Amino acid sequence: MTTARIVVTLKNGVLDPQGKAIEGALGTLNFQGVGKVRQGKVFDVELDTKDRAKAESDLNAMCEKLLANTVIEDYAVEIVEE
Amino acid sequence: MTTARIVVTLKNGVLDPQGKAIEGALGTLNFQGVGKVRQGKVFDVELDTKDRAKAESDLNAMCEKLLANTVIEDYAVEIVEE
Repeated sequence: MTTARIVVTLKNGVLDPQGKAIEGALGTLNFQGVGKVRQGKVFDVELDTKDRAKAESDLNAMCEKLLANTVIEDYAVEIVEE
Repeated sequence: MTTARIVVTLKNGVLDPQGKAIEGALGTLNFQGVGKVRQGKVFDVELDTKDRAKAESDLNAMCEKLLANTVIEDYAVEIVEE
């Protein structure tokens, strides 16, 4: 079995209202020196295969087709465990 | 400046309807051998400090107070860049 972690983040320049809200909230909570905050998504996916190359190509296809909106989001695939 | 990545994931045993929906959708898209899928959140935070210890303690406090619901979620803090 292969376990992978996919991280989907907004591209630079894309407005992130959730991140902005968190910046404001951290200021309200008296955290000093907080700069930019950006929020993204993470997916932990288990695959029934030991073939690393196949797993990686499947995971990239999942991102392209379902998990990421590639117009505004970037994704990174990392195999955590084989 | 310190850049950190915080990953917030649901604890084991906590129901994840979004993850279940993604499992179903991946099946519909004909991806074979997909096991469990769990969704979480990621936060990229910039801090105006070079003090790694202070940054880590601040980031943990942010998770406890705002970013994670520690009843049902775990969090991991990773310093990406100093």
